[in-house]
Amino acid sequence: MVVLGIDPGITNLGLGVVEQVGQKARMLHGEVVRTLHTDPAPKRVGRLYQAVYEAAVRFKPVAIAVEEQFFYRQNELAYKVGWAMGAVLVVADQQGIPLYGYGPPKVKQALVGYGHADKTQVAYMVRAILNLPTTPKPTHLADALAIALTHCFFSRMTGLAPLS
Amino acid sequence: MVVLGIDPGITNLGLGVVEQVGQKARMLHGEVVRTLHTDPAPKRVGRLYQAVYEAAVRFKPVAIAVEEQFFYRQNELAYKVGWAMGAVLVVADQQGIPLYGYGPPKVKQALVGYGHADKTQVAYMVRAILNLPTTPKPTHLADALAIALTHCFFSRMTGLAPLS
Ligand SMILES: [Mg+2]
Repeated sequence: MVVLGIDPGITNLGLGVVEQVGQKARMLHGEVVRTLHTDPAPKRVGRLYQAVYEAAVRFKPVAIAVEEQFFYRQNELAYKVGWAMGAVLVVADQQGIPLYGYGPPKVKQALVGYGHADKTQVAYMVRAILNLPTTPKPTHLADALAIALTHCFFSRMTGLAPLS
Repeated sequence: MVVLGIDPGITNLGLGVVEQVGQKARMLHGEVVRTLHTDPAPKRVGRLYQAVYEAAVRFKPVAIAVEEQFFYRQNELAYKVGWAMGAVLVVADQQGIPLYGYGPPKVKQALVGYGHADKTQVAYMVRAILNLPTTPKPTHLADALAIALTHCFFSRMTGLAPLS
């Protein structure tokens, strides 16, 4: 099972592709797509769309998993994370890939075993599960891989509902 | 000059196309694209993308103008308006159409003459300027047409900066 994990953001979008076979998981691809805040908004979001589209076509994931954050410090930040999500959602629709959202407590629960684990424990587990030589950096990439692994974990359960 | 005006929203997206020639303006097209909150998120945003894409290809606007609201009652609302904006921004990038954002005071200033006008005055002016038999309904369509006309108004000025 190949899963595309995404840590959505307009300036930094983390993108990690993971393949799970039985109890084993490995990283197929990882990148952080960056855009400049001085660039026009269509160019920024178009670049995110393109990167997600290319990953979807290249790796043919059975699911896209995204980090969902419900409390932002500012309205405007939530709005602009939404721009990035819009691009991801267009790709998911065009390629017919179901999309799932997971909040931080779900990620911690899946990877560390309890919902109040801290971020370094999550990053440590990402490294261990994927058998990586070092902790994935930057954090946006570690977050994207964590989200992909979270979906692998929860997808063993039945009745998982895609994001609406 | 043809302008595509958009009142972005995930459940209701207002879409109005206006053509301005000299001092005259007319409506070429208007619709409200609706999505169901019970539908998967990719399907909803994919539908918005498709509607905006079709309008862009059919009417070849020189600009897309969107309503920008900076204060939302809730974070989650801002986030989901962002989803809709993401779809619009992907179309703008793919079709190479510059995109401009206008807040409500700018719309009121352009159409009524002062930034504190109320919404009924704006709708009345949209009807008058476009020479429509009745006030455009629903409000999301009136809003979209108002945004398109606002761009026609401000585009006469130099130094207009696209949204970033
Ligand atoms: Mg409206």
